Amino acid sequence: MGFVWVLRLGHRRERDKRLTTHCALIARAFGAARFYYTGERDESFEKSAASVAKRWGGKFKVAHSASWRKVFTAARAKGARVVHLTMYGEPFESAALKPPLLLVVGGEKVHWEVYKEADGNASVTNQPHSEAGALAVVMHSLGLKPVFSGAKIRVESNPRGKTVFNARKGKGRR
Amino acid sequence: MGFVWVLRLGHRRERDKRLTTHCALIARAFGAARFYYTGERDESFEKSAASVAKRWGGKFKVAHSASWRKVFTAARAKGARVVHLTMYGEPFESAALKPPLLLVVGGEKVHWEVYKEADGNASVTNQPHSEAGALAVVMHSLGLKPVFSGAKIRVESNPRGKTVFNARKGKGRR
Repeated sequence: MGFVWVLRLGHRRERDKRLTTHCALIARAFGAARFYYTGERDESFEKSAASVAKRWGGKFKVAHSASWRKVFTAARAKGARVVHLTMYGEPFESAALKPPLLLVVGGEKVHWEVYKEADGNASVTNQPHSEAGALAVVMHSLGLKPVFSGAKIRVESNPRGKTVFNARKGKGRR
Repeated sequence: MGFVWVLRLGHRRERDKRLTTHCALIARAFGAARFYYTGERDESFEKSAASVAKRWGGKFKVAHSASWRKVFTAARAKGARVVHLTMYGEPFESAALKPPLLLVVGGEKVHWEVYKEADGNASVTNQPHSEAGALAVVMHSLGLKPVFSGAKIRVESNPRGKTVFNARKGKGRR
């Protein structure tokens, strides 16, 4: 099936911590293998993402990169198509996205070269939007079936409350 | 077809401004008619949401409410089902969501009564997630076809760049 990586551009420690964290959670929940980010290095973000991956299982990795071009190159070296998600792009439904894939999501201002050097620019609606929302819709549409092996915590669907399995405490209901 | 409203719980002006804004943009982009929020009243958030709606068209409204119960009641009075999005719920695919609908998304800690008093709790994966991401996936799945009448700005899909129509300046390309 091939992998999906996500690249978040231009992280700013103060302003973007929560949104970058949301993007990373979305990437992981829908089965991305790696999450790269450029901009300011943020060890506290990296720690919290690693902690989620450790408790909830799977092999999701987060890494800072000094350059989006390096991530493009690394993904292409493994056969991936590089697709930038933007409200200006072609509808993602017609972009025929499938792994192996590098999905690129912007920060506040995306440099024009990203639009040019990506293999495609794909939109989730042409309305002002959220990069987290766009990423979620596209990741969901890929239909990956992630397996979260080694999880210490696991949730079972419950229409009326919470059912949580904890490797230490056993099953809990609320 | 019926309406979709979104309710965001427990907004905190400082900490949540960007995420609440993202949730509102997602709600609007996918065709929600109204966005309610509880927690701290935030006029700057309201102004920025109103400004997007004015420039980009449509009738999207944002309103603060002192009580989530009041919003539940108002939505039910118009025939809506109230569905809380949470990683603990049943898979949203099996919850058969359709308008008229009030979608409820949490803030940091969601009071237990919200789980009980909603008509259903629906999950987008059972992994730690983003309320913005979950909202986007569910809104997209509803397949609403919003019309953004009266728009001053409009974007046309472009796989290689930006095509923007501006009522004042005409069409621009980059």
